[in-house]
Amino acid sequence: MLGGGPHAQVIPLENIPKFANDNQLLPTVAQDAQTGEVLMLAYMNRAAWEETLATGEAVYFSRSRGRLWKKGESSGHVQKIREIYIDCDADTILLKVEQVGGAACHQGYASCFYRKRTADGWKIMSKPVFDPQQVYISKGAPGSV
Amino acid sequence: MLGGGPHAQVIPLENIPKFANDNQLLPTVAQDAQTGEVLMLAYMNRAAWEETLATGEAVYFSRSRGRLWKKGESSGHVQKIREIYIDCDADTILLKVEQVGGAACHQGYASCFYRKRTADGWKIMSKPVFDPQQVYISKGAPGSV
Repeated sequence: MLGGGPHAQVIPLENIPKFANDNQLLPTVAQDAQTGEVLMLAYMNRAAWEETLATGEAVYFSRSRGRLWKKGESSGHVQKIREIYIDCDADTILLKVEQVGGAACHQGYASCFYRKRTADGWKIMSKPVFDPQQVYISKGAPGSV
Repeated sequence: MLGGGPHAQVIPLENIPKFANDNQLLPTVAQDAQTGEVLMLAYMNRAAWEETLATGEAVYFSRSRGRLWKKGESSGHVQKIREIYIDCDADTILLKVEQVGGAACHQGYASCFYRKRTADGWKIMSKPVFDPQQVYISKGAPGSV
């Protein structure tokens, strides 16, 4: 069946993603649509998913805050949705985004994955794009996702 | 402090990732080291992490099977670890891998994220690299992660 018919199939929008209930959190990977860099991983419940679709910008569910969290609500560094993919089990979401401000990480780095494992230890591989103390100055540092 | 000293800091290997206990599962993103394509998301507990480091090939914890699962144990499509990154909260792992066989997905696609959301529905965007019925013929289809 390689190259055959099955991949021409289109699955109805309402069946995917598979939220078992309104509270289930699905891991969501945000990837830079231009560079392919993996920016961050966060979680969506059904409400976050629907808000993301409605606004065209990424909305997650913050586990630490226990509420919907529009990415960039404090920093202004919103993520404009360019493409949305779903995995084979329909329980992990992949967003290709335009990262406003050039940095997804609340620590000021372009990507939250700024540390690489080396023989000597975990090494910071990039320079911050912004200074978190300036960006979050009036609101305190944001919590973890 | 932009461009200053903090990013020269090296964090000891043993402190990261942050497993709260032996059973906690951390989401792990596998990305193709060459193309940057996001291949899949799976989970690691501490034992999976240690086995990955020891073997240089990705080992996950399969939630459906309730045991360690060496990626490619049935298909032969192992993931050779090229680089490992950790996110700002030290609770999400990013693997840059060489995907043996060219396909990470048990459905035969290069990436598990082979379906894209369009106005008309979820559309399969790529052709399978292999036929799952041939690869898994003697073992049955693998379960979800």
